[in-house]
Amino acid sequence: MSILWSESQKKRLGELGAKNEQMIIEFDTLKERDSEFKKIEKVLAREGRSRLEEYRKMTKRPPICELETKLINALNNIGFVQVTTPVLLSKGLLEKMTIDDNHTLFSQVFWVDGGKCLRPMLAPNLYYILKDLVRIWEMPVRIFEIGSCFRKESQGSEHLSEFTMLNLVEWGTADEDREKRIEELAKVVMKTVGIEGYHLERTSSVVYGDTVDVMLCDTELGSSAMGPHFLDEKWGMTGPWIGIGFGLERLLMAKEGGRNIHSMGKSITYLNGVRLNI
Amino acid sequence: MSILWSESQKKRLGELGAKNEQMIIEFDTLKERDSEFKKIEKVLAREGRSRLEEYRKMTKRPPICELETKLINALNNIGFVQVTTPVLLSKGLLEKMTIDDNHTLFSQVFWVDGGKCLRPMLAPNLYYILKDLVRIWEMPVRIFEIGSCFRKESQGSEHLSEFTMLNLVEWGTADEDREKRIEELAKVVMKTVGIEGYHLERTSSVVYGDTVDVMLCDTELGSSAMGPHFLDEKWGMTGPWIGIGFGLERLLMAKEGGRNIHSMGKSITYLNGVRLNI
Repeated sequence: MSILWSESQKKRLGELGAKNEQMIIEFDTLKERDSEFKKIEKVLAREGRSRLEEYRKMTKRPPICELETKLINALNNIGFVQVTTPVLLSKGLLEKMTIDDNHTLFSQVFWVDGGKCLRPMLAPNLYYILKDLVRIWEMPVRIFEIGSCFRKESQGSEHLSEFTMLNLVEWGTADEDREKRIEELAKVVMKTVGIEGYHLERTSSVVYGDTVDVMLCDTELGSSAMGPHFLDEKWGMTGPWIGIGFGLERLLMAKEGGRNIHSMGKSITYLNGVRLNI
Repeated sequence: MSILWSESQKKRLGELGAKNEQMIIEFDTLKERDSEFKKIEKVLAREGRSRLEEYRKMTKRPPICELETKLINALNNIGFVQVTTPVLLSKGLLEKMTIDDNHTLFSQVFWVDGGKCLRPMLAPNLYYILKDLVRIWEMPVRIFEIGSCFRKESQGSEHLSEFTMLNLVEWGTADEDREKRIEELAKVVMKTVGIEGYHLERTSSVVYGDTVDVMLCDTELGSSAMGPHFLDEKWGMTGPWIGIGFGLERLLMAKEGGRNIHSMGKSITYLNGVRLNI
């Protein structure tokens, strides 16, 4: 009882969405192992085809797109308006987030010819829009964006170089209500996704200073910040605000108990969570 | 009667969405012109604030996002399933579209460090997914994606470097039904957007060979292709198919009679079609 899956078998089983207990089976002989591998592979491929059939006939949308729609409706319902901004970001706007050569995040930024980068976060664009909206609209101003962000990551099963962020901001929340509002808004998002048993945790972010994270056990699902904040003055802004950011792929992983974040995001190899080379 | 708007006045009026007739007013004196400019600017800014208020209270979503939702529902309803793929594209997949150094489109491609580019079109990713789906699913296979594409463009009022494409493909349409299906599917999209009086026109595309375009007067709103096609073999695929691509910002321009495509797309300077520095 000491033979384990080969590396390629383990990789394949991971792609096909094998369960944890299937990943750690031990065998007496190679023959036994390889025979079992074929059996499990066949069953998982059949399950994959069945999930693809359900998607084709019933849901017709990838889970991440459906989640986006649900979140838009939930946030619209509580008075947040949607904005949609470009993924190409100027170096100047990145620097306003204090992300320069010395910053931890800087090495993770994708640069595009023409002096632009792919936004590693939604915040700079939201600041840019808010600086006008807080002038034009009465407080509080409530906006959100859901869109792709990009970071060079070690290509583990935990990270995606292109991922989908939800960032909501409420500008003009009364000082004394900020923590309560973060709790309320995190609750709206968690309820919409269908995640129970999360908790909030104080921590420190390289960009935003002290923050409150939305955690499910040890996994960070979202991260919040509040102002007045030292970044505000770079946009000529003052006053109290709160904001929360969530990674949609991580929310899906947490909801569905998946282990492979690549099957949850934008992909050409996975569809509806199913590896397509089955 | 020979003094026209100054260049900066003309630019500002364009940003504020002045009507065609307002753009070509002639004046006797500079004083008269500058006084009239202030009046018009004030009225247009007030109209902008009113459109922003309507968006804040009523629609709560940018027009391009609302159009995306409508198109998703319409296409789901006729059996097309949505896919969502990364904007970062490998050079290899771009080359499979025969877009290499000699190709007209090549100079318009944004390159990202790490040997990837920003997709200039959705087609390579759709091919990649379809090569598996046509094996797994019964014909016809119907998929679509709506997502950002990127091309370096002369920054005129007609083009955006980041724009939103809808590309739908039906693989396995009977040979004799292909032209009729293009007409039917173009009709579904035009009806969903609310555009009347369009027509189809044969033309020739640098990537797809002979195509049928969806035209509104002289403006190309969409472009279709059909197979069997010389690109198919690069993906190991055969058989008849049809596909149509639309630029969502152009569809909105056509629908709303707008003149400034920058106010229609993803933007940090426009919201709900309104320039924010009012």
